[in-house]
Amino acid sequence: MSRLAIYPGSFDPPTLGHLDVVARAAHLFDELIVAVGVNSDKAPFLSVEDRLSSLEECVQGMANVRVESFEGLLVDYARRKDCQRIVRGLRAISDFDYEFRVTLANRAMAPEIETVFLITKEEHSFLASSVVREVARLGGRYEGFVPPPVVEKIRKALA
Amino acid sequence: MSRLAIYPGSFDPPTLGHLDVVARAAHLFDELIVAVGVNSDKAPFLSVEDRLSSLEECVQGMANVRVESFEGLLVDYARRKDCQRIVRGLRAISDFDYEFRVTLANRAMAPEIETVFLITKEEHSFLASSVVREVARLGGRYEGFVPPPVVEKIRKALA
Amino acid sequence: MSRLAIYPGSFDPPTLGHLDVVARAAHLFDELIVAVGVNSDKAPFLSVEDRLSSLEECVQGMANVRVESFEGLLVDYARRKDCQRIVRGLRAISDFDYEFRVTLANRAMAPEIETVFLITKEEHSFLASSVVREVARLGGRYEGFVPPPVVEKIRKALA
Amino acid sequence: MSRLAIYPGSFDPPTLGHLDVVARAAHLFDELIVAVGVNSDKAPFLSVEDRLSSLEECVQGMANVRVESFEGLLVDYARRKDCQRIVRGLRAISDFDYEFRVTLANRAMAPEIETVFLITKEEHSFLASSVVREVARLGGRYEGFVPPPVVEKIRKALA
Amino acid sequence: MSRLAIYPGSFDPPTLGHLDVVARAAHLFDELIVAVGVNSDKAPFLSVEDRLSSLEECVQGMANVRVESFEGLLVDYARRKDCQRIVRGLRAISDFDYEFRVTLANRAMAPEIETVFLITKEEHSFLASSVVREVARLGGRYEGFVPPPVVEKIRKALA
Amino acid sequence: MSRLAIYPGSFDPPTLGHLDVVARAAHLFDELIVAVGVNSDKAPFLSVEDRLSSLEECVQGMANVRVESFEGLLVDYARRKDCQRIVRGLRAISDFDYEFRVTLANRAMAPEIETVFLITKEEHSFLASSVVREVARLGGRYEGFVPPPVVEKIRKALA
Repeated sequence: MSRLAIYPGSFDPPTLGHLDVVARAAHLFDELIVAVGVNSDKAPFLSVEDRLSSLEECVQGMANVRVESFEGLLVDYARRKDCQRIVRGLRAISDFDYEFRVTLANRAMAPEIETVFLITKEEHSFLASSVVREVARLGGRYEGFVPPPVVEKIRKALA
Repeated sequence: MSRLAIYPGSFDPPTLGHLDVVARAAHLFDELIVAVGVNSDKAPFLSVEDRLSSLEECVQGMANVRVESFEGLLVDYARRKDCQRIVRGLRAISDFDYEFRVTLANRAMAPEIETVFLITKEEHSFLASSVVREVARLGGRYEGFVPPPVVEKIRKALA
Repeated sequence: MSRLAIYPGSFDPPTLGHLDVVARAAHLFDELIVAVGVNSDKAPFLSVEDRLSSLEECVQGMANVRVESFEGLLVDYARRKDCQRIVRGLRAISDFDYEFRVTLANRAMAPEIETVFLITKEEHSFLASSVVREVARLGGRYEGFVPPPVVEKIRKALA
Repeated sequence: MSRLAIYPGSFDPPTLGHLDVVARAAHLFDELIVAVGVNSDKAPFLSVEDRLSSLEECVQGMANVRVESFEGLLVDYARRKDCQRIVRGLRAISDFDYEFRVTLANRAMAPEIETVFLITKEEHSFLASSVVREVARLGGRYEGFVPPPVVEKIRKALA
Repeated sequence: MSRLAIYPGSFDPPTLGHLDVVARAAHLFDELIVAVGVNSDKAPFLSVEDRLSSLEECVQGMANVRVESFEGLLVDYARRKDCQRIVRGLRAISDFDYEFRVTLANRAMAPEIETVFLITKEEHSFLASSVVREVARLGGRYEGFVPPPVVEKIRKALA
Repeated sequence: MSRLAIYPGSFDPPTLGHLDVVARAAHLFDELIVAVGVNSDKAPFLSVEDRLSSLEECVQGMANVRVESFEGLLVDYARRKDCQRIVRGLRAISDFDYEFRVTLANRAMAPEIETVFLITKEEHSFLASSVVREVARLGGRYEGFVPPPVVEKIRKALA
């Protein structure tokens, strides 16, 4: 059995906390797909293209990681990929109830898929994409919260 | 004093978790009203009519349960019904803070009304209406999350 | 079916928060037993006799409430009493996880017994028996935290 | 160093819980600015002017408190005021995770600014601006939740 | 790199929830050690021998799982085993703060070791060893909470 | 009014997290007493003398901080010191319910005393005295968790 895992998210924008999870998961599994969920209902902060290309730049030194986008339900995407492992990061101050609820709903729909949680670095414990968006929109210094390739995309989005 | 209780919610859509609470509350009180709150500000997923009719179908074997809709504040509705008992379900992973806040606000406005909490079955601990809506909208298998009369209403709503 | 409910606890000592739950539950059910759990393993702060007699004094104006003690498992005691309703108080700052765990364990052992949660008054939200014991042992003014009949028992216990 | 503190919020509307924090903070610091954050993206319930003028009326007996509005990031505003103390209230049932996240993000951007948390009165533990808005919109009695100068502004906003 | 993982615990007694985690982890990793922590300070409920032998019986159909005991610090044991993966189960109602604290302390001492969290089945969400011990000591029916080989050990311990 | 604050705790042992709170509080108030609570019921890990002397060594560069011990109730001690400010640190993963309960109990007994909460550094979010004691007792490397003067006291205590 190939040990492929999927790390799903909206990554809008990708943060240093996301990259910390990517690095941990890449070490844990043979292959990792960072999967950008496309939600056509909501107007995103960064376009799917910008999220994909900045993530690709971020992971280009990691041989076993690739970046994709997906639409629809995560468990359907995972089944199409023949993947039975989902990775999620938990921040000390994350919405744990939300993660639990999603995991159990996924398990009810696809019992063969296991969700694996990793704990992000303490210094990223507050880092959510929503915080970065808020800071960026209010003219604050978001540069310390995101990887360099994302800085440029945010600058463009704000312009 | 007649032991009437109200189980309020938006039930958009009703889930198996809601029905579990209905069954428990019907056993606990002499009479139970399942009360569908109508919020004219938000575009609902299911129409009020579909929520009412599917709930009615679900409870038709329970002699002491009836279904109604109400507008405005819950405590005002309860007072019009001369009812002093509100029932709410708690999931292991529910937004307990939200329930607490609402209960205490209701109590400040209507001290004679008691809110009673029941714990839903473990296998429904993740089941929120929002999860069902999300799964349904993304094309997933929501059929296992809702009672049969609701399946059909969702199918219609998605069409 | 007689609408008997049991409000179990160690009540060591009874607090104003406990009495708030007793009053609410007495209003909600036809008959209420305040059931003092006897745990022979731990040295109590107040003796079982002092807990029972002070609780009896507290509830003597409530016609449908009586006080008992029990040993062993709560669900076995409830079955001996042919009672299918357990009442528990939730403080805004209570150990909700503990309550959930006990309720689900009880349900696994006795599915016919329903646990009903009531929310105590906000001004009692911090009031736990352990807080009273701590304050009393350190020479603090515990008198505002417990009903008058308990004050005297604590004074005796400290002497 | 002047002991100036800022108590920021959207105060939409100001509640009795907010005023409790103002009174506590005014006692703790030499000078206090109640700072109304202006978010041009969201349509507010009360206009900035109504929030400012009702807050001014509320604090007019407190010599060391003044009311201001600010746009943009809180830490940038605090730096312009040469202020290194932010005050926030915690309700027993507040979204503590949210407060933590904001505090740590602010600290990452402005390490010299300390956020100080005070606990509001128990009887205000459920009082959030969102509760007041909801009750007011549904025709409920919000008068007991807000200071008198705010009652009038809400009446106007609903008209 | 060999994909060995350690699932540590005191397993006093092992529960059906523990076995659920073992099965999930055995599926996720090449090799799994179920590691019974020996704490010479506390008098255990089941002896280390009984915990080891009952766990061995439980996992005997799982080719890639073995059972060991360890003393001292978990990270030191993991390093002696040249293992960089620790598995922990999260119940919906688990003491998540405790798990977080231990994980971050372990990471501070051994940054190369990753802790991976799996979510146990909903029907085990209340199942803690402490619940089983309490039920067993009070004469309750613990048989539905533990695997068959453990039932016998508990019976012996109670005798 | 003199701006004296008390930072109480058992400090058994003092950790880097405690010192972070001391530094923040020393910056916030004119004078700070680090107050070591003496509990004659429990056998401590470090003696009161060792806790006092190591804390004194830690704060000797801070002109407005002194170290004391106290017995009995914190609010009684604060009143004897004519102090109306108590400081407590909150870790992202602290037992917030416990802090809330203690603060509200203190407020019920001494309404004039305000408790002020500061948030510790993220990298100390897991650091509790109990973690240090556990690691030290199991032979682990506790040196990175406590200030240098404490290392020596722990070494002595373990010998």
